[in-house]
Amino acid sequence: MSQRQHLLTVDSLNRERVDHLLRVATRMEPIAQRRQVTRVLEGAVLGNLFFEASTRTRVSFNAAFCRLGGSVCDTTGFTFSSMAKGESLYDTSRVMSGYCDAIVMRHPDQGSVAEFAAATNVPVINGGDGPGEHPSQALLDIYTIDKEFQRLGKSLGGAHILLTGDLKYGRTVHSLIKLLSLYGPLRITLVSPPGLEMPSQLVDLVTSRGHHVEQRNSLASDFSDLDVVYATRIQKERFTDEMNESFQGLSNDFMVNRDFLDQRCSEHTIVMHPLPRDSRPGANDLNVDLNGDPRLAIFRQTDNGIPMRMAIFATLLEVDELVEKEMRPVRWFVPAQTGTLDR
Amino acid sequence: MSQRQHLLTVDSLNRERVDHLLRVATRMEPIAQRRQVTRVLEGAVLGNLFFEASTRTRVSFNAAFCRLGGSVCDTTGFTFSSMAKGESLYDTSRVMSGYCDAIVMRHPDQGSVAEFAAATNVPVINGGDGPGEHPSQALLDIYTIDKEFQRLGKSLGGAHILLTGDLKYGRTVHSLIKLLSLYGPLRITLVSPPGLEMPSQLVDLVTSRGHHVEQRNSLASDFSDLDVVYATRIQKERFTDEMNESFQGLSNDFMVNRDFLDQRCSEHTIVMHPLPRDSRPGANDLNVDLNGDPRLAIFRQTDNGIPMRMAIFATLLEVDELVEKEMRPVRWFVPAQTGTLDR
Amino acid sequence: MSQRQHLLTVDSLNRERVDHLLRVATRMEPIAQRRQVTRVLEGAVLGNLFFEASTRTRVSFNAAFCRLGGSVCDTTGFTFSSMAKGESLYDTSRVMSGYCDAIVMRHPDQGSVAEFAAATNVPVINGGDGPGEHPSQALLDIYTIDKEFQRLGKSLGGAHILLTGDLKYGRTVHSLIKLLSLYGPLRITLVSPPGLEMPSQLVDLVTSRGHHVEQRNSLASDFSDLDVVYATRIQKERFTDEMNESFQGLSNDFMVNRDFLDQRCSEHTIVMHPLPRDSRPGANDLNVDLNGDPRLAIFRQTDNGIPMRMAIFATLLEVDELVEKEMRPVRWFVPAQTGTLDR
Repeated sequence: MSQRQHLLTVDSLNRERVDHLLRVATRMEPIAQRRQVTRVLEGAVLGNLFFEASTRTRVSFNAAFCRLGGSVCDTTGFTFSSMAKGESLYDTSRVMSGYCDAIVMRHPDQGSVAEFAAATNVPVINGGDGPGEHPSQALLDIYTIDKEFQRLGKSLGGAHILLTGDLKYGRTVHSLIKLLSLYGPLRITLVSPPGLEMPSQLVDLVTSRGHHVEQRNSLASDFSDLDVVYATRIQKERFTDEMNESFQGLSNDFMVNRDFLDQRCSEHTIVMHPLPRDSRPGANDLNVDLNGDPRLAIFRQTDNGIPMRMAIFATLLEVDELVEKEMRPVRWFVPAQTGTLDR
Repeated sequence: MSQRQHLLTVDSLNRERVDHLLRVATRMEPIAQRRQVTRVLEGAVLGNLFFEASTRTRVSFNAAFCRLGGSVCDTTGFTFSSMAKGESLYDTSRVMSGYCDAIVMRHPDQGSVAEFAAATNVPVINGGDGPGEHPSQALLDIYTIDKEFQRLGKSLGGAHILLTGDLKYGRTVHSLIKLLSLYGPLRITLVSPPGLEMPSQLVDLVTSRGHHVEQRNSLASDFSDLDVVYATRIQKERFTDEMNESFQGLSNDFMVNRDFLDQRCSEHTIVMHPLPRDSRPGANDLNVDLNGDPRLAIFRQTDNGIPMRMAIFATLLEVDELVEKEMRPVRWFVPAQTGTLDR
Repeated sequence: MSQRQHLLTVDSLNRERVDHLLRVATRMEPIAQRRQVTRVLEGAVLGNLFFEASTRTRVSFNAAFCRLGGSVCDTTGFTFSSMAKGESLYDTSRVMSGYCDAIVMRHPDQGSVAEFAAATNVPVINGGDGPGEHPSQALLDIYTIDKEFQRLGKSLGGAHILLTGDLKYGRTVHSLIKLLSLYGPLRITLVSPPGLEMPSQLVDLVTSRGHHVEQRNSLASDFSDLDVVYATRIQKERFTDEMNESFQGLSNDFMVNRDFLDQRCSEHTIVMHPLPRDSRPGANDLNVDLNGDPRLAIFRQTDNGIPMRMAIFATLLEVDELVEKEMRPVRWFVPAQTGTLDR
C-alpha cells in the first residue's frame, strides 16, 4: 500500500500535499465554526485508539470525525486488554481494520504507529508516537500561521519565526520546522537553554533548503520584526545536574510573557504554543499574563485543530470535494464567540 | 456572558424558567419513550467531561444528547492527562469549547464547574461538583413529582412532601427543596437523625417563601396525607462516634420500607430516591421490599432524566421549539414496557 | 418476558433461529464491507456495558450498531461507580433500560448477564460472562464456516472439523460445538493435552445428536480430509504440576503451524481461532508462520463479527427486513482490500 494512504510522519508531506490540506481545511471552516453541518461520512466508523492518555488530541480527532457525519469508537488506556495477553500489533491492526474505516492511533513507543499501519489498508493517522511524530499538530500549526498571516496581510515569504523553549526533545518543533522549510524563504531564530538546542541535522536540513537560521541562548535581544513566537515548555526533569545549575541564572532569559512581547516584539507578533501549557507558578512555560492579549493565538491555534483534522480525514477518505457540495445551515444556537475574548 | 447560557446551579432558576423546562420535557416524552425520533442536533457535539466517575449520570446525558441527533465525546477519569501536567481549568475550558457545542462537566471540587464555565461562551451544564450542585437531578425530581401528580389528579398547591435521610450532606435534597419552594404553598416535613438535619438557612429560605416546614427525628408518626416521600441514604461514614452511638437505637426510625408505606402512609403516596440506593443488607437506605409496588416511583424518576436532560440541552441550544416540528416515528422494536413491571 | 428477546446463551438457539441469523448476516454484508450504508436505527441508543475490559469485542459491537445508524454509550471498567456503592444488578439494569434501546453486557461473573437481563424488557446481549457464555462469538464462528464452505463449494453435511487446544476451559469451543451440533451430521475430532479434554456431557450431547466424535491427545495423525481446524490457546497457567510435567514432551503434538497444515492437512483446510492469539515466542498458540497463507481464516473470521452482530441487533430490534430496503451507496474511499493480503 502507498504511504499516501496514511498520515504517519511529516516527512511524507511535500509542498503540494501540505498546500492541498491547507486548502481543504479552509473549506472546512464553515463547519468547524458551526455555521454549517455536513453528513458526507454518514455510516463511517473511526477507531480512535489511544494507548496513551491525551484528552485534547483524542477529543479533537473525535469531534472532527463527528462534524463530517461519522461515528467514533474511542479506546483509551495504556494497554489494550488483548495486547496484554500477547497479541501482536499486526493482529490488533488487522482486527481493527475490519471494524473501522479510518484509525487514529497514539502510542508511547516510537515507530509503533507505523508498525500498526503496515498491517492494514485502512487509512491510519499517527496521533503521536512517543518521542516520534505527531503530524496533525504540525499541520494545524502551519495552518494557524497561514491563517493569521492572511488576517494580518502578511505572507510566509520572508517571515521571521522564533522557536523557543526545549528544542531538543520537543517533537512538535521538530515536525513544525520541517513543514516550515517547505515554504519561505524564512528567517528562523532558535532560542533554547544550553543543552536543549535543536538537533543539528534539523538545522542543516532547513539551512540546505535556503532558509536563514540563527541560534541563541537568550531572548534578550531585539525582535521588533518578529512575526511569530512559538513557545514550548522547558521541563526541568530533562536537565542534568550541570544544566540545572547553569539554568538558575538563565531562566528569565526564556520567559515568553507580556513584558517580552511589549518590550522586544511588535504589536503584530503572534504567540503560539502546542498546549497544554503549565500554568503553575514557577513553571518555565508561556506566561498566563498574556491571557486576553489579541497577540496570544494559542486558542485560535487549538480551534484550528478541528478544520485541519477534518481536512486530513476528508482527504484520506476522499470526500474533500464532496463536502463543499453538501453543507446545510446549523439550526442550533451558536454563541457569537464560541470561546472567550481570547480568540 | 449571561448565566442564562449555562446551567450551573438551581439558584439561577426562577419559576418561569423551571416551568419552561417542565413544558419542554413534556414535549420530549414521545422521543424519550421511543415512539418518535428527531435529528435537530445533527452535527452538534457534546463534550461529556466526567472528572469523577458517575456512570448513570454520564450515560443519561449522553443518551439524551444522542436522542436529539447529536454526537457525544465522553471523557472519564479522575484527572485529565493535560490537567495533571499543570493545565489550568481556564485553558481546558477554552480548548474544549473550540471542539464542542455544549459541555457537561462533573468534578469532585465545588466551584470548579463554575470556574470552567467562566472561560467559555459554550453552554456548560453542571453534572455535579462534589458537595456543590447537581441541578439536572433536582429538575428531573420536580418533573417527576409534577408528572406523578398529574397522573394522580393532584397538584403541587397544598401538597405534603417528606424529605428523609441525610439532609445535612445530601446535595440532592438541598437543590430539590429550593426548586420546590418556587411552587406550592407546600407542607414539607424533614426527618433525619440528630446531627444530619437540613441546614437552617435552607429551612429559613423555604419558610420565608410561605411554606410550612416541620422537622422531626423519627418517621414514627401519621403520614396518611403524605403525597411524596423522598428518601436518601444515611451514610454511617458521616457519623461522629457520639452520633453513631445514639443512632444504634434509632435506625428503625428512618426505615422507608413496605411497612412504613402500608402502615403510616396512603395508597397514593409515591416514593422517590436520587439513586443509586445501597441494596446490601444493613444499609440505611430505601428498602428493596418495595420493589414491584406501584408507589415506588424511583425507576420512573430515573427514566425522567432523559426528557429533562433533553429539555435542558434543547433549551440552552435553542432548538426547543424546533423539536416539535421535526419528529418522525421510531422504526425499531420497542417493548411495551421498556423497564420492568416496576414502572 | 420471553427469552427470544435477549441473546444470553447459545442454548436458547434452535436451528431455525441460527439459520435466520445466518441469512440476516449475509444480508448485512454490503454494509459490513462498506459498499452500502443504512440508517434504520437512527435515534436508537446502545448501552455497551463492559464490566471487564475486552477492546475488540466492545469495538465490534459498537461499530456494528453504528453501521445500522444507531448511537452507542460505552462504559468500560471493572466496577461501575454506583455498583461499588452497593447498587444491585437489578437496579442498574432497570436504570440502564430507561436510557438505552439495547444493552450489550460483559461481566467477569457467570450468570450476571442473565441476572441483569431478568430485570428488563430491553434486549440484552451477553458479550461474555466469565467462564459462562459468549454467544455472538459462536455465531460468528459458524457464520464463518458457512461462508468459507460456500466459497469452497462445500457444505456442512459430512464436514470434518477439528477443535484443538484447551477444550476444558475454553468457553468458545463449548458454545461452538453446541451450534455445530444443530447442523451436519459432522465428523468432529477433539485434540487436547491430557487433563484439558472437552467436558464429557458436551461430547455426549453432540454424539446423541448423531455426530461422530473422536478424541485424541495429539495432532500427529492424518488430517488430509480435514475441512476446518479451530485452534485455541493452551494456557499453561491452567496446568497442575503433574500436567505441566507430562506436557513438556507433548507440546509439539498440539502445534498448529505451517508444517502441520502442509504435511497433515489439505490445501482446502481452513484455520480458525477466536483471537486474540498469543504471538510471543513459546506461547502454545496458533503459529504466526501461517500469516499470509490463504487457509488462515482468522481475520476473515473477526471481520465476520460485524455482519453477525449487525444481524443480532437487527433481529432483536426487528429491523432485519427493513435494512434491505434502506441501503444507499457509501461515498467515501474504501480500499479494495480493507485488511491485509491475509483476507
